Amino acid sequence: MSVSSFHGVWPYLVSPVAADGSIDDAVLARLCDDLIAAGVHGLTALGSTGEFAYLSWPQRRRVAEVVVAAARGRVPVIAGVAATTTAEAVRQAREMAEIGCDGILAILEAYFPISDDGVHDYFAAIAAATPLPVVLYTNPNFQRSDLSLGVIDRLSRIDNVRAIKDASNNTGRLLSIINRVDGRMQVVAASAHIPACVMLIGGVGWMAGPACLVPRQSVELFELCRAGRWPEAMALQAKLWNLNQAFARHNLAACIKGGLVMQGYPVGDPLPPQAPLSAEGQAEVRRALDEVSQ
Amino acid sequence: MSVSSFHGVWPYLVSPVAADGSIDDAVLARLCDDLIAAGVHGLTALGSTGEFAYLSWPQRRRVAEVVVAAARGRVPVIAGVAATTTAEAVRQAREMAEIGCDGILAILEAYFPISDDGVHDYFAAIAAATPLPVVLYTNPNFQRSDLSLGVIDRLSRIDNVRAIKDASNNTGRLLSIINRVDGRMQVVAASAHIPACVMLIGGVGWMAGPACLVPRQSVELFELCRAGRWPEAMALQAKLWNLNQAFARHNLAACIKGGLVMQGYPVGDPLPPQAPLSAEGQAEVRRALDEVSQ
Amino acid sequence: MSVSSFHGVWPYLVSPVAADGSIDDAVLARLCDDLIAAGVHGLTALGSTGEFAYLSWPQRRRVAEVVVAAARGRVPVIAGVAATTTAEAVRQAREMAEIGCDGILAILEAYFPISDDGVHDYFAAIAAATPLPVVLYTNPNFQRSDLSLGVIDRLSRIDNVRAIKDASNNTGRLLSIINRVDGRMQVVAASAHIPACVMLIGGVGWMAGPACLVPRQSVELFELCRAGRWPEAMALQAKLWNLNQAFARHNLAACIKGGLVMQGYPVGDPLPPQAPLSAEGQAEVRRALDEVSQ
Amino acid sequence: MSVSSFHGVWPYLVSPVAADGSIDDAVLARLCDDLIAAGVHGLTALGSTGEFAYLSWPQRRRVAEVVVAAARGRVPVIAGVAATTTAEAVRQAREMAEIGCDGILAILEAYFPISDDGVHDYFAAIAAATPLPVVLYTNPNFQRSDLSLGVIDRLSRIDNVRAIKDASNNTGRLLSIINRVDGRMQVVAASAHIPACVMLIGGVGWMAGPACLVPRQSVELFELCRAGRWPEAMALQAKLWNLNQAFARHNLAACIKGGLVMQGYPVGDPLPPQAPLSAEGQAEVRRALDEVSQ
Repeated sequence: MSVSSFHGVWPYLVSPVAADGSIDDAVLARLCDDLIAAGVHGLTALGSTGEFAYLSWPQRRRVAEVVVAAARGRVPVIAGVAATTTAEAVRQAREMAEIGCDGILAILEAYFPISDDGVHDYFAAIAAATPLPVVLYTNPNFQRSDLSLGVIDRLSRIDNVRAIKDASNNTGRLLSIINRVDGRMQVVAASAHIPACVMLIGGVGWMAGPACLVPRQSVELFELCRAGRWPEAMALQAKLWNLNQAFARHNLAACIKGGLVMQGYPVGDPLPPQAPLSAEGQAEVRRALDEVSQ
Repeated sequence: MSVSSFHGVWPYLVSPVAADGSIDDAVLARLCDDLIAAGVHGLTALGSTGEFAYLSWPQRRRVAEVVVAAARGRVPVIAGVAATTTAEAVRQAREMAEIGCDGILAILEAYFPISDDGVHDYFAAIAAATPLPVVLYTNPNFQRSDLSLGVIDRLSRIDNVRAIKDASNNTGRLLSIINRVDGRMQVVAASAHIPACVMLIGGVGWMAGPACLVPRQSVELFELCRAGRWPEAMALQAKLWNLNQAFARHNLAACIKGGLVMQGYPVGDPLPPQAPLSAEGQAEVRRALDEVSQ
Repeated sequence: MSVSSFHGVWPYLVSPVAADGSIDDAVLARLCDDLIAAGVHGLTALGSTGEFAYLSWPQRRRVAEVVVAAARGRVPVIAGVAATTTAEAVRQAREMAEIGCDGILAILEAYFPISDDGVHDYFAAIAAATPLPVVLYTNPNFQRSDLSLGVIDRLSRIDNVRAIKDASNNTGRLLSIINRVDGRMQVVAASAHIPACVMLIGGVGWMAGPACLVPRQSVELFELCRAGRWPEAMALQAKLWNLNQAFARHNLAACIKGGLVMQGYPVGDPLPPQAPLSAEGQAEVRRALDEVSQ
Repeated sequence: MSVSSFHGVWPYLVSPVAADGSIDDAVLARLCDDLIAAGVHGLTALGSTGEFAYLSWPQRRRVAEVVVAAARGRVPVIAGVAATTTAEAVRQAREMAEIGCDGILAILEAYFPISDDGVHDYFAAIAAATPLPVVLYTNPNFQRSDLSLGVIDRLSRIDNVRAIKDASNNTGRLLSIINRVDGRMQVVAASAHIPACVMLIGGVGWMAGPACLVPRQSVELFELCRAGRWPEAMALQAKLWNLNQAFARHNLAACIKGGLVMQGYPVGDPLPPQAPLSAEGQAEVRRALDEVSQ
């Protein structure tokens, strides 16, 4: 996966976990298959929607193995690496490389605040651990850390640090990053941003949970943006936005898992004590899906 | 000012105050004149950049009078109305109408939290106070209140509530508003949003302090967006963004006043205990201005 | 009022405003009279509970005049001075001195963030404006500014800066202040702190809205603390705390005004768009009052 | 450990980790020994100071084993159980019981927000997993969850839920809890509270990192409080507070580890990417220790 080829729609996959804690390989593999058939450009395992924070390492490893196997090289697979310590993150990254992942989604879990130098060193160590391309992921809503512009600039100078997914909902910050890194790193939208806007300002695509539910429409939106057909892109984007809104209002994993169940994928509920998607949330998701499928 | 005519670039004017507390009419009038000559579509007095929160009512009234007189009907003038009580806001709105303002920028200053009903009633009372069009202004960074989507929806059903300027920096929220109000109200960008993105999603323009410093380029950006010439728009937008970034990093009023002084408008410093633009801020603003004037 | 004499229970008075905006002198004077009869050590006009943020200057001035007249020198009166600009704060302080207030409760209202130097200069200017003793008041929940330990230390070296009322609810910060100012300034509790705890760590009393409703019990608590009769103090404190809790859960002014109406003082509701005390809030306040009057 | 016997000073132990990731048994055991000799009433492993969030399960288990072995039944040992999922927390609790811990410090790590019911069910499941007494621990500064008063009330009705350690720095909330749970649960101070204040309002002791550094003085303070010798207690408390302040200003683990190294315990630094205690922090800790040892 070269910088130039890193683009498009990358669904943030859910992690289906059976009551005994095992990963439900079959439904996950079928979901991957169907998403690839719908035209997505890559698959992302173990992002926020994939409940990385709720899974043990054996569960995470199994999710990555299943997704890599299901992709069969048709599209690249990026997998989340998330830890509080540098040592554990490096260990995870190496294992993800052995499993055959094509890239790393690097996440810093923090308990105490971390200095800019600490943040830099953490991500730099992940990048040094394997030759795989690294996508930095920061979500200040849920993670207790963030990347300053200065740290992003420093990290963009590392060869295999290729992109950043910033889920802050501050779209202006993405343009600030784009201006600052001057082409050394790509910017990827999250569901908290309007994907069409991020494409307009120079983004290369998006990694987001809702793309699991509307892969065809997401790919269509991406192609409209890439072709510069902005009025058509915005007409589609406005309709798709209701799903992102529902996603933001409810537990991310509950929302996508709930929607997938409606679509015939028995992926189960998020892990307790997270609650399943509420009746109100189900109605919202159903309405949003109905609107975009018309 | 009809809904259809409300659009374009509306600089958020500074309020030049002399050492004795009087408004410096001459420099304010000259600034208005030059902005109109540069093609701006309207003028906004007494927004955040205009230090409404730091001015007595006689000072605010004088600012409005000077701007209305300077505009001479060439472009419409919107003036800020900001209070903690409904009664005072209504009083201000009526006086702004008598002065000859063409619209009201309605701001709720809160000390204690206000319920949704209270927020609605406050803005509805301003709208009922005069026949002037009203632009709702919410800036959750500085004001201790915000408008929920439900309140915005209710307010959009009032005839002369014409637009909302949301300075939250959450651009997705603007699309949520646009989807929700269904054409009953316009959406205007603030400097915390990327104006080109807001135009793409259906906004009608922007009200922002930086337009005082780069009016010609702002109007050019607006026209490029309106014409759907997005690649050219983004090339210009990316350059202009550095100014918005400097604006966000420093005191808004200090930033624009500092920049205007560089451009030959002796508008002074923000009112103490606010600090003047720091040396670092001056360098940033100068650099940003140099880049866009090339 | 010397440093050594500044102590005890200082109710934060409400501001009764009639429908036409005039201050209801009679009920305010009667309340002051009754509080003095109950043994309070001083009166504080125009704190948060006094809705300073909702009153025009003529209304604030009238409140101060009525309270000074009602006190008739029997207890000292401190009045709130609150502004966004230094110039306006200085003007208010001088007028409060002319009215005959015995001290100033100094409040910084901020819209944009203010640097430590700006915060210092604002309060220092108030102290220099009159010879009156000054009590610094900081309430980070509602005001958009706070005082750092360094600024508090600097201000404590000004002769007539006599005390600080910190309403942060972080009681440890009060001990940090006490340790830092080393006797140069007194510390006063707010309703967000447990008064008995603040007395234990070296505070000299409290300024708080609930003392309007339970003045006798507040004075009794103060005397128990001063006498070092801690077990009896805590038994009373635990009962009184429920009122502080109700106060924290609801709009401060609505809570105290609602309670006073129950007690036969027709002080009206807080100014719109603030809501009157809800039925639930009324029940809570009534229950809390019943408990302490047993 | 019965409710009546649960009281006193419980140091929050650090977790010394060697470069190869192994726990340094010897230094941890020696620290435990010395703390017991100094008179502490119990030991707490794997709290915030113990870097539970940075340790793998095998590391955590080893810490618990070493502390239980070192205590040799002389004082009870409570060990942290912290997870994002209920299933993992239950698993950890059972293992802690098998190891021989005398109680569980129950912590909810959250990534997405959890509803009140979810929070209740998580802690209730831990309580049901073993017969051991459970201390609820909530630290809203670092954990992405909190316990509402309603949830605390419900949990207090579970037999083996014995105490709560709330590290919110809002001491008034502790009194609200004490009033609400009506003796069904004990309240324990954290380092963010002033221990003497918490003892005054009815707390039974404290669990805190600084007690590792000043165990004798902490026990002395506890005994003074228990004996109702408040003026002497406060004289000691005021001196000890500087250490809590240093602790709050720096990384908790770095602060206590740094202080222990000064005292001759080679416990190392916190795990990267956390930074070691800065030179400034070292000076602060040394000064605070010098003051209390005089």
